[in-house]
Amino acid sequence: MNDTIAALLAHRSVRAYAPDPVPAGTLEALVAAAQSAPTSSNLQTWSVLTVDDKATRKSLAAIARGQKHIEECPLFLVWLADLSRLEELGRRKSASTDALPYLEPFMFAMIDAALAAQNATVALESLGLGSVYIGALRNNPTEVARLLGLPPNVMAVFGHCIGYPDPERPAAVKPRLPQNVVLHRERYTAPSQPAIDSYDERLAAFQQSEGMATVGWSKMALERVGGIAALTGRDRIREEINTLGFELR
Amino acid sequence: MNDTIAALLAHRSVRAYAPDPVPAGTLEALVAAAQSAPTSSNLQTWSVLTVDDKATRKSLAAIARGQKHIEECPLFLVWLADLSRLEELGRRKSASTDALPYLEPFMFAMIDAALAAQNATVALESLGLGSVYIGALRNNPTEVARLLGLPPNVMAVFGHCIGYPDPERPAAVKPRLPQNVVLHRERYTAPSQPAIDSYDERLAAFQQSEGMATVGWSKMALERVGGIAALTGRDRIREEINTLGFELR
Repeated sequence: MNDTIAALLAHRSVRAYAPDPVPAGTLEALVAAAQSAPTSSNLQTWSVLTVDDKATRKSLAAIARGQKHIEECPLFLVWLADLSRLEELGRRKSASTDALPYLEPFMFAMIDAALAAQNATVALESLGLGSVYIGALRNNPTEVARLLGLPPNVMAVFGHCIGYPDPERPAAVKPRLPQNVVLHRERYTAPSQPAIDSYDERLAAFQQSEGMATVGWSKMALERVGGIAALTGRDRIREEINTLGFELR
Repeated sequence: MNDTIAALLAHRSVRAYAPDPVPAGTLEALVAAAQSAPTSSNLQTWSVLTVDDKATRKSLAAIARGQKHIEECPLFLVWLADLSRLEELGRRKSASTDALPYLEPFMFAMIDAALAAQNATVALESLGLGSVYIGALRNNPTEVARLLGLPPNVMAVFGHCIGYPDPERPAAVKPRLPQNVVLHRERYTAPSQPAIDSYDERLAAFQQSEGMATVGWSKMALERVGGIAALTGRDRIREEINTLGFELR
């Protein structure tokens, strides 16, 4: 254990911000940290985009089904899986980019974006800032692409609300599954029902302490994957991603 | 700037390890850090698996086209996109999991795994350890699943070699694309050719200083996406992922 690990363990999602702006130079420091993350074969198939414009923020919040923190946060980023740079490079150099239309490059671009974003999250928390990722931008990737002027072969993986946490509305560290549920040795082992039951109880206690509905984990999780409606439009995401130019062969 | 950000900027991929084992308790600290990463709707759709068995390591190294560090590293992890827990939960509770066969849950599971892994990387570097991700496990996801006993709806996203860096074979920090290439404001902007050219020169200088072929970035990157052969088997990854149980609808 050390300060870095203690800071990682203290992570919480922050959706309520103080009005203070993010200081000058912070964005550049976060992006530098993001660029230092590992990237598949150094291809760096990601980009990040800042959105300040109020109307664009409002449109993005609507796509995310009314998540007001998208409009309220001092800094809003969108992390992008970006194969357009390589495609453009191929065009400029008259070189083949025949591997790009496969599912694999889409996957490593998405992984690259996630690794980069997480480094930015670690960096911003070390500066006293808080944040939350907005996966709900995937409710409508083509509309997001239109709003942000994304070229073909670029997709918004998730948004990112950033700001100083509002001291009046502090967020708590959410308990996670018992470690032995996610950690396997040599071969995969399915979790025991008591391990899941114990987590249901711990999360219910947390929900109660936070004034949330005390449903535990299993019920909440099953609601999230229980029907097509729970996908909030993302049942069409494969076609939408195709429309953005990724063939996903 | 602070110590945390300085540490992130000092990241390098480490493929050569001192023989010292990873101290007791380290794995558990890394997984705790990983569990503290953000996860989509708290679904925690990832797992991590340790592989010590020499024969399994050898098989995994062969899948990764002879990456010896997989056999040599003191600690080897495999980060897993894991929808099996939710599927099993649905079965136990006789609840619908109709949303799981879509591409979207596969995507958020992969993102969850990447975010978790990157927290582990930050944690291990804070302990003086080094590491490198092994995307080449995706050369053959079904064989990896067989070796590790993965149930349906679990896929190895990447491996992770971890150990103390060998002081005799130090790794250097690799320069990345200029920040203005990856950072966009309000709308996406394609990079200028001079920006890419300048990076080609910087990376060529780095390659020369490391005793590598001085090809720059553009040529290296285009070789990686230039033909189906460059995918090292991953042109079949969509079918392989289907075979693992993910429909990717």
